[in-house]
Amino acid sequence: MTRPTIPHGRYAQRLAQARAAAAGAGLDALLVGVGADLAYLAGYVAQPLERLTLLVVPTAPGSPVTLVVPRLEATPARACPAAAGAVTVATWEETEDPMAFVGAVLAAASGRPARAIDAVAVSDGLRASFVLGLQRSLPGARFSLASVVLRRQRRRKDDDEVALLREAARAADRVVAHVAGGRLIGRTEADVAAEVRERLVAEGHDQAEFWIVGSGPNSASPHHDASDRVIRAGEPIVIDIGGMLGGYGSDITRTVWVDGGEPALGPHPEFVRLYAVLRDAQAAAVAAVRPGIAAEAVDAVARAAITAAGYGPSFIHRTGHGIGLETHEDPYLVAGNAEPLAVADAFSVEPGIYLEGRFGARIEDIVVCGEDGPILLNELPRDLWVVRG
Amino acid sequence: MTRPTIPHGRYAQRLAQARAAAAGAGLDALLVGVGADLAYLAGYVAQPLERLTLLVVPTAPGSPVTLVVPRLEATPARACPAAAGAVTVATWEETEDPMAFVGAVLAAASGRPARAIDAVAVSDGLRASFVLGLQRSLPGARFSLASVVLRRQRRRKDDDEVALLREAARAADRVVAHVAGGRLIGRTEADVAAEVRERLVAEGHDQAEFWIVGSGPNSASPHHDASDRVIRAGEPIVIDIGGMLGGYGSDITRTVWVDGGEPALGPHPEFVRLYAVLRDAQAAAVAAVRPGIAAEAVDAVARAAITAAGYGPSFIHRTGHGIGLETHEDPYLVAGNAEPLAVADAFSVEPGIYLEGRFGARIEDIVVCGEDGPILLNELPRDLWVVRG
Repeated sequence: MTRPTIPHGRYAQRLAQARAAAAGAGLDALLVGVGADLAYLAGYVAQPLERLTLLVVPTAPGSPVTLVVPRLEATPARACPAAAGAVTVATWEETEDPMAFVGAVLAAASGRPARAIDAVAVSDGLRASFVLGLQRSLPGARFSLASVVLRRQRRRKDDDEVALLREAARAADRVVAHVAGGRLIGRTEADVAAEVRERLVAEGHDQAEFWIVGSGPNSASPHHDASDRVIRAGEPIVIDIGGMLGGYGSDITRTVWVDGGEPALGPHPEFVRLYAVLRDAQAAAVAAVRPGIAAEAVDAVARAAITAAGYGPSFIHRTGHGIGLETHEDPYLVAGNAEPLAVADAFSVEPGIYLEGRFGARIEDIVVCGEDGPILLNELPRDLWVVRG
Repeated sequence: MTRPTIPHGRYAQRLAQARAAAAGAGLDALLVGVGADLAYLAGYVAQPLERLTLLVVPTAPGSPVTLVVPRLEATPARACPAAAGAVTVATWEETEDPMAFVGAVLAAASGRPARAIDAVAVSDGLRASFVLGLQRSLPGARFSLASVVLRRQRRRKDDDEVALLREAARAADRVVAHVAGGRLIGRTEADVAAEVRERLVAEGHDQAEFWIVGSGPNSASPHHDASDRVIRAGEPIVIDIGGMLGGYGSDITRTVWVDGGEPALGPHPEFVRLYAVLRDAQAAAVAAVRPGIAAEAVDAVARAAITAAGYGPSFIHRTGHGIGLETHEDPYLVAGNAEPLAVADAFSVEPGIYLEGRFGARIEDIVVCGEDGPILLNELPRDLWVVRG
């Protein structure tokens, strides 16, 4: 299978759309640092380090878009897709002040001195050292977040992006299937997590990003860090893993029960009940996905089912998060977020029930909102899986 | 060998020192997000995600230090070393506004309403979404960077930290020795980089962080991203790799020449000359390290040697960066940084010479400033290494 790639011409389209949105929002410029927004707008990926890399997208008509990079990164910057025409690369020297450099670039592009710039938006992940530095070099500017203008276009995944998300999801499916079906008893969570990391890369990921392996009582801690606890028969394991593949994220959770082949060590009756409630809640939330439904309404569907069964206080997190160039991005499926889901939104649906000190479970799939309802990217079964371990 | 760990009691000492420094700087509080400062002050390591995690360190005498985390991360937060006494964990719910929550925590600790807070410092890596949110919830506060008060204490590595840096350096040494001594010809840079990543973990790193493999003309791009270029006999390779081990960074660069066992494909005469200049410049810069010398003076030593040989314009980056809980941190060895080096500073010394379109070379070691001069943590030889590949 050939991995889909984003055609170079698409970056110019994305930039044009972003500039129009930024102009409409009354901004003088978008200022985008290393991270998902920069990958989205320019196809440029770099280490997020202490030297400033910033895409300066002024809204003044006809003004150039400039990718400001440290000189020692000039070669990779000039090789990025957007540098083929949509973006000019400008380099600063080690002994220059990059904040003043950006001020000068912005002043030249907008035809006004830096102190007369009124409003800019910075990428949400920009480091405080850059934010405060830019606030000093643009003293008259109101600062807001670039997501306000970029979120709408980043949410709507095109076919290539969905294809990459699907490939990432299938790769993660294979990792969970292999790890959960293999030996578990007697191994530490950390050892299993190390296997997860290796397998994510072996299955095609560029990079593993997270590898939650929560066994026994640790399954009740949603963001548990894999520990030196040794897995035993007669307990559940929450496996929540993901990484980046072709720049797009995977994120899957399955909860299995390890019985060591002994029926007496099979699922605790309360776990069976809890899991059945969770399974139904997750399925109902997925089924509720359609264009126009409020993000919080999908959360409410999962929460209502879990609450009706008496586990409401044990479902201590939101139902899901968007996924794409970031593992967590818009839209968030959480109470208070009334924005409607739209075609080509991609997000997780991942309710969980956690009985602190005893056990917990979570089921997570990545879903794309299709014209006619949900499109599941993960294909691994969701029924309670009792493994020998 | 047992890996050194940071004793739990040390976090209380670090916090006390940080509070005193912050009070001395006229700050009402330090606000520290996920990252190296949080690991340093509280021993708490978490994924840097969109949900706010913030250590609130008020300077008011007797006020509690609070680690604010999303509720679903309460369990790992309460298990961090500082939570054993020095720090109280407070959790916010998914539907709460974490910025207002922090404002309330700070108000309670300082005995003043949030709008009356005058001055705070935020960790340098804090996301713009959090910085701008905090600026809204603390509208009267002047914002500065936490590094201003933390940099001095973070620079001075204690014996446990140096031991971890040494272990990381030795592990990275072994990886370079193995990779450079193995098969190279006919492999892509990306394939060699994948081997580097695996070996860094196999040699004890928690995580590989970077894996520059620049062959042929790519050796002249300092931050080259390993590509699909196939390595051939008769060219150099810059190998610049590192990761985190026990929370502390490794970072080593060696440049080798691949000759395929054929003397006719041995080092180009200009490369031999360039490398000899670089070798001497790096050694001279290392030898110049001693307490009290200005950081920029070490840079000047390397630059003078390279400039005298006519390669000055081809040394396009600073000579080095501090290393510890971050791969790049204070002190930076760069023109303009007149601050003196001090005992227990740890940093890289890594001059390079780059002839664009042809070839380049860099030699990098991690050095600790000892009472009597430099202590080299890397032990791999620095002479021109011609490998069969």
